[in-house]
Parts: sequence; structure tokens; C-alpha cells
Amino acid sequence: MDKILRIDMGAEGGPKAAAEPVGAYAGLGGRSLTSTIVSKEVPPTCHPLSAANKLVIAPGLLSGSAAAMSGRISVGCKSPLTGGIKEANSGGQPSQVLARLGYAGIVFEGKPLEDNLYKIFINKDGVKISVDNSLRMLGNYAVVERMKAEFGEKIACISIGPAGEMKLAASSIAFTDMELRPTRHAGRGGVGAVMGSKGVKVIVLDDSGMKFREPKDKEKFNEANKRFTEGLRQHGVTGQALPAYGTNVLTNILNEAGAYPTYNFKEGRFAGAARISGETTAALETERGGLATHGCHRGCVIRCSGTYVDKDGHYLTKQPEYETVWAHGGHCGIDDLDKIAMMDFLDDDTGLDTIEIGVTIGVAMDAGLLKFGDADGAISLVKEIGKGTPLGRILGSGAAITGKIYGVERVPVVKGQAMPAYDPRAVKGLGVTYATSPMGADHTAGYATATNILKVGGYVDPLKAEGQIELSRNLQVATAAIDSTGMCLFIAFAVLDQPETFQALLDMLNAFYGLSLSADDVTELGKKVLKMEKEFNRKAGMTEEQDRLPDYFKSQPVTPHNVVFDVSDEELDKVINW
Amino acid sequence: MDKILRIDMGAEGGPKAAAEPVGAYAGLGGRSLTSTIVSKEVPPTCHPLSAANKLVIAPGLLSGSAAAMSGRISVGCKSPLTGGIKEANSGGQPSQVLARLGYAGIVFEGKPLEDNLYKIFINKDGVKISVDNSLRMLGNYAVVERMKAEFGEKIACISIGPAGEMKLAASSIAFTDMELRPTRHAGRGGVGAVMGSKGVKVIVLDDSGMKFREPKDKEKFNEANKRFTEGLRQHGVTGQALPAYGTNVLTNILNEAGAYPTYNFKEGRFAGAARISGETTAALETERGGLATHGCHRGCVIRCSGTYVDKDGHYLTKQPEYETVWAHGGHCGIDDLDKIAMMDFLDDDTGLDTIEIGVTIGVAMDAGLLKFGDADGAISLVKEIGKGTPLGRILGSGAAITGKIYGVERVPVVKGQAMPAYDPRAVKGLGVTYATSPMGADHTAGYATATNILKVGGYVDPLKAEGQIELSRNLQVATAAIDSTGMCLFIAFAVLDQPETFQALLDMLNAFYGLSLSADDVTELGKKVLKMEKEFNRKAGMTEEQDRLPDYFKSQPVTPHNVVFDVSDEELDKVINW
Repeated sequence: MDKILRIDMGAEGGPKAAAEPVGAYAGLGGRSLTSTIVSKEVPPTCHPLSAANKLVIAPGLLSGSAAAMSGRISVGCKSPLTGGIKEANSGGQPSQVLARLGYAGIVFEGKPLEDNLYKIFINKDGVKISVDNSLRMLGNYAVVERMKAEFGEKIACISIGPAGEMKLAASSIAFTDMELRPTRHAGRGGVGAVMGSKGVKVIVLDDSGMKFREPKDKEKFNEANKRFTEGLRQHGVTGQALPAYGTNVLTNILNEAGAYPTYNFKEGRFAGAARISGETTAALETERGGLATHGCHRGCVIRCSGTYVDKDGHYLTKQPEYETVWAHGGHCGIDDLDKIAMMDFLDDDTGLDTIEIGVTIGVAMDAGLLKFGDADGAISLVKEIGKGTPLGRILGSGAAITGKIYGVERVPVVKGQAMPAYDPRAVKGLGVTYATSPMGADHTAGYATATNILKVGGYVDPLKAEGQIELSRNLQVATAAIDSTGMCLFIAFAVLDQPETFQALLDMLNAFYGLSLSADDVTELGKKVLKMEKEFNRKAGMTEEQDRLPDYFKSQPVTPHNVVFDVSDEELDKVINW
Repeated sequence: MDKILRIDMGAEGGPKAAAEPVGAYAGLGGRSLTSTIVSKEVPPTCHPLSAANKLVIAPGLLSGSAAAMSGRISVGCKSPLTGGIKEANSGGQPSQVLARLGYAGIVFEGKPLEDNLYKIFINKDGVKISVDNSLRMLGNYAVVERMKAEFGEKIACISIGPAGEMKLAASSIAFTDMELRPTRHAGRGGVGAVMGSKGVKVIVLDDSGMKFREPKDKEKFNEANKRFTEGLRQHGVTGQALPAYGTNVLTNILNEAGAYPTYNFKEGRFAGAARISGETTAALETERGGLATHGCHRGCVIRCSGTYVDKDGHYLTKQPEYETVWAHGGHCGIDDLDKIAMMDFLDDDTGLDTIEIGVTIGVAMDAGLLKFGDADGAISLVKEIGKGTPLGRILGSGAAITGKIYGVERVPVVKGQAMPAYDPRAVKGLGVTYATSPMGADHTAGYATATNILKVGGYVDPLKAEGQIELSRNLQVATAAIDSTGMCLFIAFAVLDQPETFQALLDMLNAFYGLSLSADDVTELGKKVLKMEKEFNRKAGMTEEQDRLPDYFKSQPVTPHNVVFDVSDEELDKVINW
């Protein structure tokens, strides 16, 4: 990871790749690298689909090493969805493989001069870029099959589906998992459209002949890694709940808390929740011969993923995440797991953000396009996106645009990005994160559900305004740092509750790089990243007025607690301001 | 004009109207009244289609009097298109009629509790509001026919077509002309969608029994009015060019100047310009038995309008304006006047901004939906909007949204509003207005073409950056003041060139109201309005970054002069900043 691969897609005579030393970007990884490069090199007011935008793909600081949980990869650019800076990260294999190939990041620049679609093969010998227009409008699953046929099974793929090619603002970038399926996605903010605008259909990585990245102090590193892993296994969330039921363990919890947004954020509880819960999903998977516990990348010890098979036992999709089940489920009044799983597959194959698309369908339901609860209708809408019909393009552009086009007032977005599966009125800490994160409404940016609902890292009453600013700020800072390490964010549960697990993480970083970082240094890194991101947005033309929830969350109470979002604007302005 | 009519569309038990004294709003009219009410009463961050937004319709200070040219009416609200404050004004009869009925303005508030469509009848006896769902999705022409059948021929109508009912961001509000046709429109910014969100289909005005508004000093007023009228007749633009050929006299002029945006702002000259020029239009109208010279309201002495008939002599539409002919013509590579006239009719009937729709079709052409020059295809697209199909809704949402949905980078908008018929690289003063007007890209906000191209009010080289800031600022200030008087903006040509005509206008105002306003007072009013509008936008979350042209105007030169827009950002920030 001592070099950055720059690929100029707009070079005369066709795209050109060149590796350069990390230089001034040394010491950065994942989100801290993508956000720094975007901040320094992308004009904040540029059109997100223009040659001036850049797409940065970066493994984390510990990716490619033997560190457990270090398989996250960050994607950065100016977002076509929010108009601000974007970092979306994903699990899967590519982070480890890219890191082992020695790249701290790939930076795509420019735009092809001709209307061609490219595939890019990277191995120990270098980079091969070739035109392959036969891949046009293929789904992610088909693309990966084609790459397997061409390059063998020892690869990892980063690809876009038809949505990214169509440059839709809800398009994702897919990353293959251990079974070489395109099931892990950098979903949010339309990063797939930026890859599409660069003409890149797929990046194939092959690390044959490369080894684990070596720590400076191997002994200390291994010892810390062991403590770290034990810490994760010890904690209730990372050691039990997530492995057993996956992220969807949250359905019953959030529903019980009255914070499960139902019928496009009209109610806080869904009558059909139990039918789509993590418990129900795991039981069904086990019964049908799928997998209820499974990792998305090698080195994962939490194993919150799984394999969802249909009633005949055939693979349908990976175990859908909580937010996906919610977006296509409760949000739309749908309680049929098989149909939700079908939409998860369609989203993955088409290359779409499941949160944005589920929320968009709920908004379309509110607009009268179909009835709440109409699962087959919802599936048809997702298919429509893949076909690129006008209706499909509307929906594939996300909830904000769909709301505008159908004249809907109730559109749950911040900075144009759809809210995830937690009602901001009933999990107010997360409401603060939605409002103030430079990323737009994003639960992962500062996951206050942990402390508001799961009582991890202390407890702050989710229904009260008090304490939420500090909670969200601390979590946003910590997250920006974790997102730089390549570590899965779920380590945060154990790290927040168990000081020794946090220390183990620090020790790993220090042993790997020969550093002596303190907890304060990590906090400083997180703060620096957040400030930089906020500054990019300011230069792009955003103000505090964009750090707000839509008005109706402040005036329309949500059942069952009948609460509104009552954190004041003045307080919100203090979050990324220290 | 001593009262304001407030209609609460969201009142319990159905909409309620109440007249109140003008109070603190005394002395304001037209744009100064709409922008003041919107600034004081509408929360800048509200959703434009929410109950919190207000729709203000206001005649000008001299409307309803015997003053020549005083037939403009202003519509104000928070814009669904730009997200900022909006004043769109229109000719036609309603301004005079509403003023004579004694109303300085109508303010629509709230939102109907039930999904009903209302018609509102206003005469000397008061206001009658009734549900009339039989008007649903009728075009403006049919609505007016229905109103004539119900209320007789001595009315003036303000209505929305299907576009406004669908709350599309390019929807207009139609105002009837002297022949009771819905041909005059407050076009820009989606004001029709706000009327639609209030559930108001049509406002029928009947001033039977009312008289001209009386000046304080009748003698002085009549004398000034005479001088004013003579001044208009004397000037080359208002006395000859506009009466003979209408606004479309500009096609040949702008094309000759190399500032006629062609093929979605790719070139500055259109080979087919002569076939769609004002001269050609007037000759055709005369030959077929239409009218080449005609006024849009009683008391007009410029008479830049006309009647466009088809080849069999049947009424097709009013004489299309220059910007309409350009948007549906050169911008789309179309040079067939009959087809352009058909689109003008469809826009008027559906209730659409001709500029926004024409530009949108050009963007759709750039996206590959149809070929440049395909007139029949373009007509089909306009029809699609009226049908409310997904494609129609995309197009009816304007150029910015259409560009987003189809992933097009070249979208000529500022603050989400489409640029009119003057290339900002080759008429740089107008480029400054596009960038800095609180209204978004709007030629009428500070019509620098006058001085850049027509050499009215002096001369500033259109191709150079020098002098454009001051030019645009002065014009924007003057325009904000003129838009408050109810005067047609075209008086500006004579007023800018002939000090005695400006004095006559001042004398008229002073004689009418018993005031002693100086030129400085008028300037102060204009400045106050602009500052207020900019402040609303600031509170709505806009910054200087929104006061910019899209990047490509700064990097891609336009033929034939091969110039880019090179007024610096720092200079732009000085325009509404004194």
C-alpha cells in the first residue's frame, strides 16, 4: 500500500494507468484517504458526472493484513445524489486483495473521449485496460460470471450494473464476497453513476503471488489481533446477536422501540414486523438449507451475513440486511420475506442502493403509484429501473427526485439522500446524525441507535433532545476514524463498551505501522476528516440550512410515542463545530 | 387597492376568504408586494408544496388605472423549481381587473384538507369559493370556455392546466388576454405547481360595476401619461420593432450577434434562424389572416403580440414570443414555425413555461431521446407532459431534473432554472444576470441584451467581461422597481434612452399617489426588493456558490466568437452587494 494507482480515463488514445508513490497522502487509508483526495483534487462546484470529478477506491489502513474485520473498502467522489462529498464503504473481498496488490487507492480521473465501456484487470504484473462493450447493461451477477470465465475463480470484482451505466443517482458499486457473488455494495450517494460516467464497468483484481501485508512488529500485532478478536466474541452484539440473526436482528428491537418507520414514516410500528424479523429470517434460512451465519470477507469473526435460498433451496440472494428488509418491507407495508429477498437480489444485480430504492418505492406509494403492501407491484418497480424506462429512471434517481416529480411533500431525505430504517423522532441521536452528517441522511455516519436503543457505550434516552448532540458528534468522529482503518463498523459495539478492545485496536495499528498513536490521535483523525468533508460541502454551496430534517418531522408526531424531532437548529449547528 | 384578500385553503370546513386592509404593506405593488409578503410570511426552508408556502398574486401600483402599459401582474411564492423566492409576472387582463376590484393582492395560504379542486369567483360583491372537481385535468383553454359559459364574457381568468394540478416544477399560471384566451403566463419557477398544491384551478374576476382607479391629481396624471405614451411611440424598439414584429424581432438580431444558443448551447448561430424570425412570422400571419400587431391587455400602446393562425386561417395560438420560438426552435434545431406554434399552444393549454420546456426538450435531445431537429418528436414530448406519463412528468419537472435523470452533464440552468434565449458567453451582461438574479436564470431580471446588443441605455461590449457587473446590477435594480409598478418591462427601452420618458413615469406615479418620489427613491425601492429576495434565498440555504453558471460555460467556447464566460466569481459576488 505504498502507491496510488491513477487511471486517466480521458487520456488521448485511450485510458492510461500509472502508479505513483502515496506521497503527501501517506498515513491515510479508507475514508481519510478518499475524503482527502476528493477535498484536494475535485473542484467542489463541478458537475458530479463531469471529467473534473474523481472516483477514489481505497482499502483501509489495516486491509490486506491478518487483522480480523479489516475488509472494508471506501469509495469517494462528489456525489450525484447529494451534491456534496461522498464516502460509501463496503465489505467483500476487494479491499484485502487491492491492499495486498500494494495499492493504497485507485483514483479514476477524466472521462472517456469515446462512448466505450471498459474492464480493468489488475494483478501483480500491472494494469490492463480494455474496451469491452459486450458487457453493456449486464447485471452485476452476469458481469462477475463473465469475469470468472475470462480470468478464473481467484479474483475479486468491483462492478456496476445497468443503474451505474445509466448514471442513476441511486446506483451503487458492487464488491464480490467470498463466493464471488456481487452482494456487497458501496450503496449510498450514487457512486455507481460516477463509475459509469468514467466508463468503467468492472475492475478485476487478482492477488495471486502476493502475500498478507506484514506488520512492523509481527508479534505485538498478532497478540493485539488476538485480544481484539476475543473482545468481539465477548460482546453481546458482536458475539451473539449479529452472528445468530445478522443485522436484521434489529427489526424486532426497533419495532418494539416504536422507532421502526412504517408507511413512509407515518407510523413507528409495523404490524408485520415479526414476519420479516431477523429471527424469522434465520429460522427460514436454516430450514430451507441456506446459511444464517456467514462472513462477507475472509478474516471476519462477527459473521453477520448469510445466504437466503428460495423455497426450493436455490440461492436467491445474500441474507438481506436490516435496512434493506425495512426499506422494502415495513416502509412499504410489505411483510413477505421472499419478495423482499427478491428485491434485494434485483437491487444487487441492477446495482442499486437498497435503502434509497426502498424509500423511493414508499414515496411512490404515497404518490399513489401503487398501494402500500403491494409486494408484486414493488418488485415490478425495481425491475422497471433495470429496464431504464422513464419510470425506472425516475425511481432510480432516488426518493428526493421521485418526490419532486410526483409532487409529494412527505419525502424523508436530508441533502437529497433517503433516511434509513430508524425514525429520527424516536431515535433522536440518529436524527441528529441524519441532519448533520456531511454524507446526507446516513445511519452509519454516527450510529446513535447503539446508545439510544441498544445501550451500548452508555445510554441516552432516544425520545429526548438532551444529550443527542454530544452523542452524535462523538459517534461521527469515531466513525470517521474507524472508516479509515478498513475495519467493519460493527467492531464499534465492542470498542465502545470494552476499553480493552479499543486498546487492542490501537495496539494493532501501532504494531502494524510502528507508531504510537493514542486514543486522542484517533479522535483527531476523525475530527480532521469530518471538518474536511464539511468544508468541501460548504465550498460546494451547502449551508447550515442543509443540516436540517424536513419540516414535517418537527411538526408531525410519530406513533406510538407521539414525539416530534425537537433538537433545535442552534444545537444541530454545534455538532461538527468544536 | 386598499385591501388584501387572504384565502385560507386549509381552513376547517373548507376554504375561507377574508379581506383585510393593506396595513404594513401599503405603498407596495407587484413584485415589491409579492416579495415582501413571501419574505415576511413564508418560512424560507419550507417545502414549496407545503401548507406553509403562500401564493401571492398582485397587480402593480398603477394597474387598474388609465396608465398605459400597466397590465402586468406579479405572482410570488417559494419556487418548487429553484427552491428560492420567486416572482413571475404576466400580461393579460387580470391585473387591471383585480386592481379595479380594489385588491392590492390575493394571498393563498394553507392547503385543502380534502383532495378537492376549487374555483374562485371574485366580483364587486365579494368572493365565492366552490368545489368543482369537474375541472380536473382540463387544459387552460377548456377551463376558460367553461368559465365563460358559467360567468359570461365579461370576466378575466387566472388558471392552471394539468401541469399545475400535477404540481410539476415547470408549470405556469395562465392569465387571459383581451379575447379571453389563456395566452399570457407567469411562466417561470413552477408557480402553477404552488397554485395546484393549494387546490385552486381557476380564479374568475369580474369587475362589472367598478371603475378605473382614480389618481389623486387627475390632470397631472393624464398629462404625464400622454408624455409617457408619446415617449414609447418615439423610441425605435417600442415604437417600431416590437409593434411590427413582436419580441421575435430578436431572432435575426441575436443570431447575427452570434449569441443565439443552438443545439443545447453548443453553437451561437442557427442556420434555420431566418425561417423562424419575427419578420417571417409577421409576414406569415398577415398572409394567412392572423394579426401581426396586437396588445395583450387594454391600455397597451406597444402591441408586441399577435395572432398566429394555421394554414387554413384558423386560430392556432397567440404570436409566440422570441424566447418560445428559440426554446422550441433553434435550441432544438427546429425551424418549422407551424410546429413551434403548435408547441406554444400546447404549453399554454397544459400550463407550462415555454422556456423551461423548450430547453428541457433540447436536453432530452442531448440525452439521445430524440434527434435535434425532430419537430414531430418534440411535439409528442410536449403532449406527453399533459398526459402525465412518467416521461411527461420528467420533462414537466424541467431541464435540471431531466438532466439528472438522464445523466446529462450539459444542462443550461442556474438555481435549477433553465437559461433563456441568449448565450451567456456572447451576451456577458445577461450571463451576469443569469448567475446572480435571486430568481435563477432569467433574462427579464436584468435584460443586459438591451445595452450589450441593442445599444439601448449606452453600449457595453457583449463579448468582454468589463462593465457587465455594473450593467447587470443597474438593470436588476431598475427591473425590480418596474416590476412593482405593473408596467410592462418593455417600457424600459424608452425609459433607459429617454430621460423625459422616465420622468413621465415618475410623474404618473407621483400624480397617482400624491407623492414626490425621485429617481433615487425608485432605485432604493429596487435595491430593497433585490436585497430582500437574496436574503430569503440565503435563509433557504443558498450561498454564492449558487450564483454561478455551470462550469462548462467557463471552459467550452461558443461559436462563432469562440468566447467563454469569463466574469470572475469575485466580480459576480459584487452584483447584489452595495
